[in-house]
Amino acid sequence: MRGAVMHAPGDVRVEERDDPRIVEPTDAIIRLSATCVCGSDLWPYRGIETVEGPAPMGHEYVGIVEAVGRDVATIKPGQFVIGSFFASDNTCEICQAGYQSSCVHRVLMGTIGTQAELARVPLADGTLVATPDLPPADLIPSFLAASDVLGTGWFGAVAAEAGPGKTVAVVGDGAVGLLGVLAAKQLGAERIIAMSRHEPRQRLACEFGATDIVQERGDEGVARIKDLTNGFGAHSVIEAVGTQESMMQAIRATRPGGHVGYVGVAHDVQLPGDELFFSHVHLHGGPAPVRRFLPELTDLIWNRTIDPGKVFDLELPLEQIADGYKAMDERRATKVLLTL
Amino acid sequence: MRGAVMHAPGDVRVEERDDPRIVEPTDAIIRLSATCVCGSDLWPYRGIETVEGPAPMGHEYVGIVEAVGRDVATIKPGQFVIGSFFASDNTCEICQAGYQSSCVHRVLMGTIGTQAELARVPLADGTLVATPDLPPADLIPSFLAASDVLGTGWFGAVAAEAGPGKTVAVVGDGAVGLLGVLAAKQLGAERIIAMSRHEPRQRLACEFGATDIVQERGDEGVARIKDLTNGFGAHSVIEAVGTQESMMQAIRATRPGGHVGYVGVAHDVQLPGDELFFSHVHLHGGPAPVRRFLPELTDLIWNRTIDPGKVFDLELPLEQIADGYKAMDERRATKVLLTL
Repeated sequence: MRGAVMHAPGDVRVEERDDPRIVEPTDAIIRLSATCVCGSDLWPYRGIETVEGPAPMGHEYVGIVEAVGRDVATIKPGQFVIGSFFASDNTCEICQAGYQSSCVHRVLMGTIGTQAELARVPLADGTLVATPDLPPADLIPSFLAASDVLGTGWFGAVAAEAGPGKTVAVVGDGAVGLLGVLAAKQLGAERIIAMSRHEPRQRLACEFGATDIVQERGDEGVARIKDLTNGFGAHSVIEAVGTQESMMQAIRATRPGGHVGYVGVAHDVQLPGDELFFSHVHLHGGPAPVRRFLPELTDLIWNRTIDPGKVFDLELPLEQIADGYKAMDERRATKVLLTL
Repeated sequence: MRGAVMHAPGDVRVEERDDPRIVEPTDAIIRLSATCVCGSDLWPYRGIETVEGPAPMGHEYVGIVEAVGRDVATIKPGQFVIGSFFASDNTCEICQAGYQSSCVHRVLMGTIGTQAELARVPLADGTLVATPDLPPADLIPSFLAASDVLGTGWFGAVAAEAGPGKTVAVVGDGAVGLLGVLAAKQLGAERIIAMSRHEPRQRLACEFGATDIVQERGDEGVARIKDLTNGFGAHSVIEAVGTQESMMQAIRATRPGGHVGYVGVAHDVQLPGDELFFSHVHLHGGPAPVRRFLPELTDLIWNRTIDPGKVFDLELPLEQIADGYKAMDERRATKVLLTL
């Protein structure tokens, strides 16, 4: 099959890779309907995370089940399925508490590499959620978004306790931040402040439900959020970047007793204990347990209540993946969908 | 009046100070029934926090109201009252959300100094809670504990979401940690693991409701907590120390999706963002909004449901306060009550 491999920072190629096969009796093999490039793929692409190349790439996926292992009971060949970036058994005590991305048997899909024609999905019954029927083609981008960026933005909004009567601020205008706006809207937030200085992303944030845009960052951004909230700060802040600056911006923009939901993968972040102590915020986040939300998100997409697929603003064939990484790295694209 | 003053690290004296008087129309003056030394008073005593001496000391207090300003409506002269270490209006949006220790009009009682015969209490209607009648003498230590260490341990337990079905671990065996055990018990926790290597404190922890004692600290302590919880970690961990080691011990002893309630005043703590991210814990804490809990705690003490006054294991007259600080500094006493 054809699949993406990163050889070194800045060097992603589509090559011939071995077809995946059932290894464990709980595995499924899926044929991808579409795949995509994630903001987190840019960390190794930019050399900020080390890459032991050649490494298969990609952890977002939707597709049709081709084969299942002998212990797979609920997932069937022919189904259209959505999974997330951690395979999980969905039965252990941690999964049952809603933290499937810390499942005791979790497998990181990035090590398998889903920017490819086919993929092996471990723990298929636990990991995959099937749609009621094969979806129309125009829904595929939205289901693909559910696989990571929608589920991650949703977790950010849930961790930040976005809901009725709340003012929610969103730090970061990538796909996750934009879908955090969408999630906050769905969860009933009263006011949603998107922090963005990029006009097309501001527009999409407003389509997704943002009521206010703040262009400033850092201390100035915090001051603007305070201005908009009677000096208190937002009730809920979704952090969707993962840098020291963005984390401190999120903490400082939150009122005492408020909630920060942080889903940007932390890089070189050190939180000062004394400031955190006196901030009185709640802090929760980490790798999103997307699986917790997939049944609900699948319904919302199937019923056309939400259209998270709008975050894809560039579509390329898998063979041109290098152009996709480049476009995202240069911020010419918010998110790149790869067709197969 | 007589009152304690710190001149320099290690140098606390009782001296003649001016009697307090009503400054703002919302003030009350109370005559203290008892006061005490707090673990946090040891930070300046040990020179870890700078002290601009001579500085009045103390922020824990119970007593009889002597006078009130003209705008005080509910608190009356002659009442026995309990307040906490932040005076608060109890009406602003932050107070109404339960974060009185971040009240927009808060006043730190430590700057007033309650290790004294008399004290001025700002925002008396918001700050003070009166008992139904004058309490019997044997309840006074418990009401005094409610002023800070009980309220703080209680907040730690609430922030850690201690409750039915939960395994709670407590890092720190000072008065706050011990009363965190008591709070977890009252909140219905199933299992309470006290981390302590001091036999008398272990005994009191067990009296307050601890079901298990772990003597180990750091990585070994974390390993013991995991052993006791099927490898997962505790659902809830109360952190009642405030050092880098204790914070990391608390975070690492908590299962994914679990809650850390941290109430030890953070000193030189830096939380590594990547470890926090992948830990999947909830983190909440800070200066306890004791006022939120005072009505409930006052009832529990008045009805003799709880006996938090047991944390006082040394009683001295105010004049001997220097001995009290010394005993706590040398860990010969858990908490020192000062009689007047």
